[in-house]
Amino acid sequence: MESRIVASLDLTDEKSLIKIASLIGENVFAIKINWPTVLSLGKTIIGRLSKFSKVICDFKLADIPNTHRLIMEQIADQNPWAVIAHAFVGKDSLSELVSSGTRIISVVSMSNEGSNRHLNPRWKELMEDALESGVYGIVAPGNNYGLLRQISSRKGNMKVFSPGIGAQGGSYIESIENGSDYVIIGRTIYSDEDPLSKVLKINLDIENHKF
Amino acid sequence: MESRIVASLDLTDEKSLIKIASLIGENVFAIKINWPTVLSLGKTIIGRLSKFSKVICDFKLADIPNTHRLIMEQIADQNPWAVIAHAFVGKDSLSELVSSGTRIISVVSMSNEGSNRHLNPRWKELMEDALESGVYGIVAPGNNYGLLRQISSRKGNMKVFSPGIGAQGGSYIESIENGSDYVIIGRTIYSDEDPLSKVLKINLDIENHKF
Repeated sequence: MESRIVASLDLTDEKSLIKIASLIGENVFAIKINWPTVLSLGKTIIGRLSKFSKVICDFKLADIPNTHRLIMEQIADQNPWAVIAHAFVGKDSLSELVSSGTRIISVVSMSNEGSNRHLNPRWKELMEDALESGVYGIVAPGNNYGLLRQISSRKGNMKVFSPGIGAQGGSYIESIENGSDYVIIGRTIYSDEDPLSKVLKINLDIENHKF
Repeated sequence: MESRIVASLDLTDEKSLIKIASLIGENVFAIKINWPTVLSLGKTIIGRLSKFSKVICDFKLADIPNTHRLIMEQIADQNPWAVIAHAFVGKDSLSELVSSGTRIISVVSMSNEGSNRHLNPRWKELMEDALESGVYGIVAPGNNYGLLRQISSRKGNMKVFSPGIGAQGGSYIESIENGSDYVIIGRTIYSDEDPLSKVLKINLDIENHKF
């Protein structure tokens, strides 16, 4: 069975990052990195990691269409599997990203307290925009099962990627039960003494669970 | 008189970028760069440009507080003068950026059509959040004078930075008349055959105008 794990490797040290990616790459669905990693190691780290696994660039892009186009051009030769972008800046900005040909995953809700003021109350409209823009997937919280269920029930053909697992309180089993297609797991894996065993155990837990 | 120009140098070629920055650096208020430049040339381009002028990193950050902290840590040694971030993701995310010690400039409205659905209608609340988070400045359109006037009238002690000048229809004189503290000018400067003369002419136009 294909793994449901997206390993969030928030590391900025090259040796540690390459080591863990080479260890677990074949046994996770994808590896996710964010700006701190790219700032530290340069954009070529995307290409280097893509030899071990699909790479999701969690850039939370939120700019005008033209800048989005230029950003996608800059990373095109690094073989990113998907890029994460915000839906709140509008459908034109999302559509421009989709037209790059790389899969786009849209943020329609966030986990920080502050996002409850403007962003989270608008998740339904943000999902409509994401769906109409032709994005591949959406990000929905793996530690808020009520919201996750509501979001998943409207996902259409989009895949649901869920952070908030482990240190942030969510369970990967319950997250999948409530609609996640993929669970984003960070510290639980990369802070473990034996990251590969941890990954294999999670894969097995999910495989053996009756959903 | 101090220049009111923020030169938006959206270039990804190192030679051209350094050449124009060294030419105009002393005669503009600041130089603004965006992700395409940093992806192409690495984060050290921030430090290199800061030898010619203040550098504003137009990153449109929109992440959770912890990721914001890690991003600011990654660029701290590059001497950025300011970083642009979205107010939409919440006050906690903005406050975390402000606590880095680098000036933060908040986006409270955008120029793309798509941003009229979620972001632009909330500019008043976004300004409140920006003000309460202690940001240094806000971004307000230099090609929408009505909105610019309204935003400027509520800016408190924040500085107003205005894009949309030149190719996008705004005039630097009218933009300043309607409340901009600084005008962000891109192609008008870097596509000119003689960028320094262009900058000096704009500085003089502004200096000679009776506001």
